[in-house]
Parts: sequence; C-alpha cells; structure tokens
Amino acid sequence: MSEVLRIIPLGGAGEIGKNMTVVEYGAHALVIDCGLMFPESDMLGIDLVIPDISYLMEAPERVKAIFLTHGHEDHIGGLPYIVPQLPVPLYATRLTRGLIEVKLREAGLLSQTQLHTITPGQPVAIGPFVVHPFHVCHSIPDSVGLGVETPLGLVIHTGDFKFDYTPVDGRLTDFGALADFGRKGVLALLSDSTNAEQPGYTPSERVVSQEFARVFEQAPGRVIVSTFASNISRIQQVIECAIRYQRRVAVVGRSMVENVRMARSLGFLSAPDGLFVRPEEMERLPPAEVVIVCTGTQGEPTSALVRMANQEHRQVSIQPGDTVILSATPIPGNEELVHRTLDNLFKLGAKVYYPRLRPVHVSGHASQEEQKMMLSLTRPRYFIPISGEYRHLVLHGELAKELGIPDEHVFVVRNGQVIEIDTQGARLGERVAGGHVLVDGAGVGDVGEVVLRDRQMLSRDGFVVVVLARDAETGEVVEGPELVSRGFVFMRDAEALMEEAKDVVLKVARSGHRDTLSTSIHDRLAEFLYARTRRRPMIFPVVLDV
Amino acid sequence: MSEVLRIIPLGGAGEIGKNMTVVEYGAHALVIDCGLMFPESDMLGIDLVIPDISYLMEAPERVKAIFLTHGHEDHIGGLPYIVPQLPVPLYATRLTRGLIEVKLREAGLLSQTQLHTITPGQPVAIGPFVVHPFHVCHSIPDSVGLGVETPLGLVIHTGDFKFDYTPVDGRLTDFGALADFGRKGVLALLSDSTNAEQPGYTPSERVVSQEFARVFEQAPGRVIVSTFASNISRIQQVIECAIRYQRRVAVVGRSMVENVRMARSLGFLSAPDGLFVRPEEMERLPPAEVVIVCTGTQGEPTSALVRMANQEHRQVSIQPGDTVILSATPIPGNEELVHRTLDNLFKLGAKVYYPRLRPVHVSGHASQEEQKMMLSLTRPRYFIPISGEYRHLVLHGELAKELGIPDEHVFVVRNGQVIEIDTQGARLGERVAGGHVLVDGAGVGDVGEVVLRDRQMLSRDGFVVVVLARDAETGEVVEGPELVSRGFVFMRDAEALMEEAKDVVLKVARSGHRDTLSTSIHDRLAEFLYARTRRRPMIFPVVLDV
Repeated sequence: MSEVLRIIPLGGAGEIGKNMTVVEYGAHALVIDCGLMFPESDMLGIDLVIPDISYLMEAPERVKAIFLTHGHEDHIGGLPYIVPQLPVPLYATRLTRGLIEVKLREAGLLSQTQLHTITPGQPVAIGPFVVHPFHVCHSIPDSVGLGVETPLGLVIHTGDFKFDYTPVDGRLTDFGALADFGRKGVLALLSDSTNAEQPGYTPSERVVSQEFARVFEQAPGRVIVSTFASNISRIQQVIECAIRYQRRVAVVGRSMVENVRMARSLGFLSAPDGLFVRPEEMERLPPAEVVIVCTGTQGEPTSALVRMANQEHRQVSIQPGDTVILSATPIPGNEELVHRTLDNLFKLGAKVYYPRLRPVHVSGHASQEEQKMMLSLTRPRYFIPISGEYRHLVLHGELAKELGIPDEHVFVVRNGQVIEIDTQGARLGERVAGGHVLVDGAGVGDVGEVVLRDRQMLSRDGFVVVVLARDAETGEVVEGPELVSRGFVFMRDAEALMEEAKDVVLKVARSGHRDTLSTSIHDRLAEFLYARTRRRPMIFPVVLDV
Repeated sequence: MSEVLRIIPLGGAGEIGKNMTVVEYGAHALVIDCGLMFPESDMLGIDLVIPDISYLMEAPERVKAIFLTHGHEDHIGGLPYIVPQLPVPLYATRLTRGLIEVKLREAGLLSQTQLHTITPGQPVAIGPFVVHPFHVCHSIPDSVGLGVETPLGLVIHTGDFKFDYTPVDGRLTDFGALADFGRKGVLALLSDSTNAEQPGYTPSERVVSQEFARVFEQAPGRVIVSTFASNISRIQQVIECAIRYQRRVAVVGRSMVENVRMARSLGFLSAPDGLFVRPEEMERLPPAEVVIVCTGTQGEPTSALVRMANQEHRQVSIQPGDTVILSATPIPGNEELVHRTLDNLFKLGAKVYYPRLRPVHVSGHASQEEQKMMLSLTRPRYFIPISGEYRHLVLHGELAKELGIPDEHVFVVRNGQVIEIDTQGARLGERVAGGHVLVDGAGVGDVGEVVLRDRQMLSRDGFVVVVLARDAETGEVVEGPELVSRGFVFMRDAEALMEEAKDVVLKVARSGHRDTLSTSIHDRLAEFLYARTRRRPMIFPVVLDV
C-alpha cells in the first residue's frame, strides 16, 4: 500500500476554464466532468474555452473513464473536443447521457464513443475504484454527486448541488447516502463553491412555481418564459402552470425544442399530449391561451428572446399585453446584453418580470448554510473546495475551518495543483499543466496571447496597410502608395487625411534609406496619424521591388 | 401667454448616453447637467460617449446657461467637449465648481469659461426663469436639485438624490424646500430613476461607517480602501475611521490625490494636519498604523488597486495581513474585471471585503420608498422620470401612477423626445436629435456604425491583406503575392497555410479576368481560408499595375 492517491482539479478551480477533476491512484485515473466555458470579454473572437488535458495526455492509458455529474455545458460541453483525443468510456445518468448523445451526434463522434448509464445507488467498479453515484438537487434533473471509493478511503465529489426540500421532480438530494458516507468515514470532500458568497439557504424551486402562478394568473395576453434550454425543471414548472391556467405551450428555438423532445422521451418532462402547439399555429389561439418557452436569458444575440426584443423574430413579435419572464440571472459579463434586452422588451410595451423584481428564478447551487450541511453530513478528513472562482474557494475553505476542519486539512488550490494523499497524510504535490485551451473555429489551442493581443489592438484603432512598388534597381517609387485601412477612421470622410498620409509616405520613400524603408514608413506614418487623430492603428508597410 | 414650455431630456433617459436635460421657454433655454458615459462593451476603441447637442446648436443663442447638479462624471464629464461648441455660463455649487475647474483647466478651457457659484436657498434669475437650488443627499457632497420657476409654473429637477437621515456631512436632503414647492404647486417633477428596481429605502451612509469600524478594528495590518475618487463622503468616512483607530492615511493615485486636495481646500473634507502620510513614507510605519485610499473599484486596468492586485504597483504590494475594502458596486459591464481583481487580491492572501459580503457600500440613489416620498412631497401635476435605463423610467412611472398621478400625466420618454406644456396641458411634441456622440482620441463624432462594425469584425477574426504587382501590359504577376495578416492565425505556426494561400492567389491571378481580379482573389481566398480554419478574416487584395 505504498501508492499515493492524487486529486487534481484541471478545470473549474480558481482559474479560467470549466469543470474537470482527476482522481488518480497508481496507473489508474478517473476524470470527473468535462466542461466548457464561454470566453471572457477580452478573449476576442474566441468561441469557447476547454480544459487543458496535456497532463492526461502524457499517459492517456491511465485514464479509464470520464464520469459526468450532470448535463450542463460547464460539465459536459468539452466532450466533443476532448473525446477525440481521449476516447475513453463515458459514464452518466440517463438524462445526462441523453444530452451527451445529442452533442456527440452533432460532432459525428457518437458511434465511436462508449457510453454507460449510471444510476444513483448502483456502484460502478473501475480498476481500484468503486464509484457510488448519489442523487443531488440542481437546476437540471438527474444530477449526481459521486462517492469514489479508493484504496485509501472515500473521496466525495458533490457535483453541482443544493438541498431543496421541495424540488420540482420530488427527488431530494440523497441525505441518506451522504450520512452513510459520513458514518463510514470520508477521506476527502470536493464540494461546489459557486455560492460561497451567499449567506443562508438557496430558496426552493417551489418559490418559482408560486411566482409563476401569480404572473400567469394576472397576465392578460401571452406569457413568454425565457430560461436555459437545459433547465428542464424550470420548463416543467412552466408546463404545470400552463395546465393550471389553461394555456397551450409553444416551444421556440432549436436547442429548446431538442431538449424538450429528449427530456420527454426519457420521461424527465411530463406533459399531456395536446398541450404543445407549434409556433406557427399559435396565431390561431387567443393570446391569453398561449405560453411560449424560449432561450435568451443571457441576452445572446441569436437567441429567440433577443430576436423578439429586437423585432427580428420570424414568428413572435412582442406587443403591449405580452408578459415576459426572464427566469435566470445574468452570468457575470452578460449584464449589459441582458439589460439591453430588458429595455427593448419594455420599449415594446411588454410587462417584464426578472429576478431583480420578482422571485422568478432561484439558484441551483448551495448557499453557505447548505455548504455547511454538506460538510457536516460527510465530516471529511480533508476538504477541497472546487467549482468556483478563486475567492469562492477561499470563502468556502473558511467556512470549513469554522466548522472545525483544521487549517492544514483544507486545500484551496487552483487548476493543475496536485493534492497527494497517502497513509501519512495529505500535502500539495507538483503543479501540472492546468491552464485552458481556446477554441476558435476549427482551431483548438492555436490562438494564444499573440493573436489575442493583435485582435485587441485591431479592435481599438484598426489598421493601415501601405503598399508601394519601387524599381528594384533605382529604388524609385513606380506605383503607389496605396492605403488600405479599416477600423481607424471613416474612410469616406477621411480622404484628405489619407492623401496627406500618402504624401508623408512618398516623402519618406524618396529620402529614406532603401534597406530600412519599411521601418521608416511605419514610424513616420504612426507619428503623423497619432498627431492628427490621437489614435494608434497598427501600421504595416509593404514594399514590392519590381 | 401663448408661449410653450418645452422639456427635453437629451441624455440619460432610456437610451445610451448620460445626463442632460433642456428646459426651454420661448427663446430661452437652460441646460441641466452635461454628463459623459463610458463606452459599452461593443463600442470598441471608443474612449467615451457624450450627449448629442445638435438640437441646441440649431439656435445656440437660446442657451443661456448650463446648471450642474453635482460633480460626478455622468453629470459634468461632457463639459470639456461641449463647452467649446456652446460657450455659455456654467452654474454649480462650490465643490461641483471645484471639480469642474480641474476638468476645464486640464482641457485648457478654464480661462475662457464663465463660472458662477450657486448656493442652496439662493435663487438665480436667468431670462424668464428663476432657478432655486436645494440641497440633496448623494454620494458626493454639495449636490443639489433645482426648482426652476417658469412662466407656466415650477419644474423640479431632483438631480441624483436619496433621503439619508444620517449623512456623513450632516446635511439632509432639503425636505423643507421640497414641501414648500409642493405647497405652492409643482408643474412638473423630473426625478432620479436609477434605483427604480430597488424596493424599500437605500440604507444610510452611517451603515458604511459602522462596517468600516468593524473592519478597521479587526485588521491586523494595513487597510486599503478603494472607492471612486469623487466619493468625498466615503473618503471622509475612511478619515474618521483612521483617526478613531489611530492610523495614518496615504492617498494613492493621481485623481484621488487631486480630489482630496481640492475637497480639503474647499472645506468639504475635514482632516487634522499630520493625518496624511505620503505613500513613499508609509514603509516606515507599522502596517497596523496605515490606511491607504485609492481608486480601482471598477477593475480599471490602470487604477491603483488593480495594479496592486496584479503586483504591478510601484509603491504598494499586497501581502497576507493586508485588508482590502472595495467600497462600491460594479457598474454593469464591469463585473468581469471586478471579479478578476477580487480573485487576484485573494490569491495574494489579502482579506477582502466587498458589497456581496459586507455592507461596505451603499447606493447614492433613492430606492422606491424614497422615490415615493419625493413624489409625495412635491405633488407634481406632471411626472417625467429621468436618469435611468428605459426599464427604470417605466418602473418609476408605474410607481407614480400607484400614487395617483393620472396615466396621461406621466411621461416616460427617451432622449430627444420633446414634452410640451402650455396652459391647456402637456403633450408629446416632436422628437429631436437625442442620440449620443462617440469620442475616440481627437475625434468627436467621427467614429460611427461603419468603423465600429469593422472593429468588431477585426476583433473576431483579424484581417489578411494580399499584395501583388502585375505587369501593366501583359497582366503577368511580377512580384508577390505577399500576405500581411494579424489577429487571424498565429503566423509563426501558420507558414504552411500561408504558402497554400499564396498558391491559391497565384492560381486566381493566372486564370482570372483582369478587371475583376481583386474580387476573384477576395472570394476565392475567403473560401479557402474558411474551409481550412472556420474563420472569416477581413480580406483585402491590393493589385498594383507596374
């Protein structure tokens, strides 16, 4: 028993990039979750961000499986990019598996991927590990946490969770399993830190149902509910409210339609036949008999709600009498787009309800008191806060210390930091690659600092390319200069400036040294343009010898 | 008495751009406030946004004065750009005037501008108007609202306000003046809508003082308080806490130093001599005897706090034992930068307090109950919510209706909408230019849709310029193609791609039609690059005939 247990957050812990955790013992490694993140505002032109798995790729044969705790993008969205490099079996509950299948099918990866369904309460043995999935409440059904039995003891990964006594599907977070784990002894707890800033308890989903009922009851016309396509519970709440207030439901938008279909076919959404109406048939119903479900809570420009707010939606135009519910809070960074969407809806005369005004949304993550409950039920020897920005991990760690876990048993670490546990104790190990990889179009990881910095500069003041041809022998300018510029000044109004700029270039071309002509043009032109405009476009001279 | 009173919000009402309101009677117009706004995230490269005054410039001789309600950027920041076009007398209270002078001096406009000091309770007569400034509480001292007597009745402009019974400077919002106005009859109320989403009352500044005391009491080392440079009251609170807990105060950062100096010299900051310590002398004091005041609450990359958090500050490096207070909430759009700053501070081991954790900040704006109090004290005939995004105006308008103001007397309008009032009543008038003007470097208004769209495209996938020279007679390529590209791919890793791209261009040059060569190169290259990279750089062919 000289082996060491290694726990490594590779994504989601205190750094850019979303969830991925490695549990490793000897030559066997399990990966938990494989998320993606949407780019931060200064990652210009980037489509998405995935975990850096170069550590795993050093010895990919060690990796025996990827377990997915639930079907949100920040937990499964990286699969289409990771699976081709690391084609290992995937383990997920039924709904999560359904969502993964949609994703892998789109990427043409489904047939070559081994998928296994896991069920809460039914352990799975893999190498030296036995994985015990247990049900947790979260803003998507069929979410689990994982108790991973290792030769050194039990490691619990909570996944994303909250304790909701009245969840929409009636399935509570599995207190029994957690208490059992606690009784038998927990070596390490890895727990969701998202809401570590939030005192008290996260309200139950029931609060949202009650508020929906109030809004539906008063709505004189159509009700339009916008939420995440993955928030199946929220969609179920809309359905129940629609039934209660005798409205039919139109599902609008590709991702929403797909998820509803899949969730219904797997039994995670219950709705009577005939409840749904196709968007194109909606027009025939009185507005007071219609509810529309769509995406757009983050102000995403291509989402259904935003197109409605901009009067660009093919099927739905917002009008006075409409009631709109935004059933989600903005992800930090999206506030501006969300506010713009809200304002546009108000301008069209809609009545709009959103979380700042009414409890039409609750978080899916445990607040401080629930985080304490998780710690108290499981009573871990070591505590590793995961799933959060760095300050969340620190605050969650402090909470654990308040509950009596010794300082040196709390590991607040960032992506790539190995935590080693053996029979002697736990300690920080080496630091492995724990960065993130940028995906841009077909390129995975090819856009880095340099390209991003160039995009930053281009976005600020644009560029100017100066082209001229000179006689290869005499050095005389025979054609040009021509200027190509975008993002710098409005060219149609800047003819005079451009003519002057050409004169500047010609003067340099005539007087400057032949070998350093490009540099001279660059410097002189930069100086001239800055003096005139106080802007610094990127400048690129091209001198052709002909 | 056939004249019409015209009220026109030109900035700050339901659209992009900050505060400016026009009150016009016959050939006389007063302007209230002249704010700037920082660019939204998709206004790439823009420095700031100012109101569009083209309506005023149609007949500038009408404009008799600009009144400034208080010294915040979103109320006075536009002056350096507007004053040269509209050189009219400015009226402001002492502190506001001090802040304006700093601004105009920097812009070289001070000597040519006429400035008048106004004092709450002392009316100013201008043309057919008599302006009655009255004191209001806000997050900067010496703030006023304005009662504007017009031939048709009194128009009240609240400025930014809240009702604070225990403000830092002891000066309450002038209930008496408001009640007097109400008794005599108010034609129209223009009132601050910023917090129209917020139920209840905004807490008093006293809450912050109490929390500061708690934090100072426990802080084992330095305390670093970050706030807006204009938040003189907050700085006063820090000073009082420093005195109480026997710490000396170092003011760090240019704008902070300037504002503190100016506010002290005008008597708006009271601090004993010898309290302050120069940043470079701080090192000699024990950490527990130091408090640092600086900017950086919005995560601004060049601010003192952010440089400290990034370990790039010349004088202050954050270390364990430091306590940092962020005494402001993020302006929507700044959340990401603020969170990053917080995380960096946590990573350096500082103890950090911010509004999500502790009441170290309160808003300077009235919440719903205070908005109702303002309406109830003044009992206006007409109500025009101003200073807010569109949804705030709507919500504020609804509040007024709940208090009994008839629907048709509530005017929820956007920048540029004229409201006409005469003896018959009030109605919507024409819509004048009420947009916004973008400032970029030396350019005021020259960057518009086209340039911004180009910057957007450049920021996403960069550009490729293709240059070639061909024989003017034969059309044969004699030099090139050369490719210049930035922001598209990392050129050092993309040599093969670029060589292939050149081949594509050469093939087109050889086979394509001479007159449409540029277009053919553009289209074929775009196709090739998209197929290979799934990116769409802007492509510009330059063909020189030599």
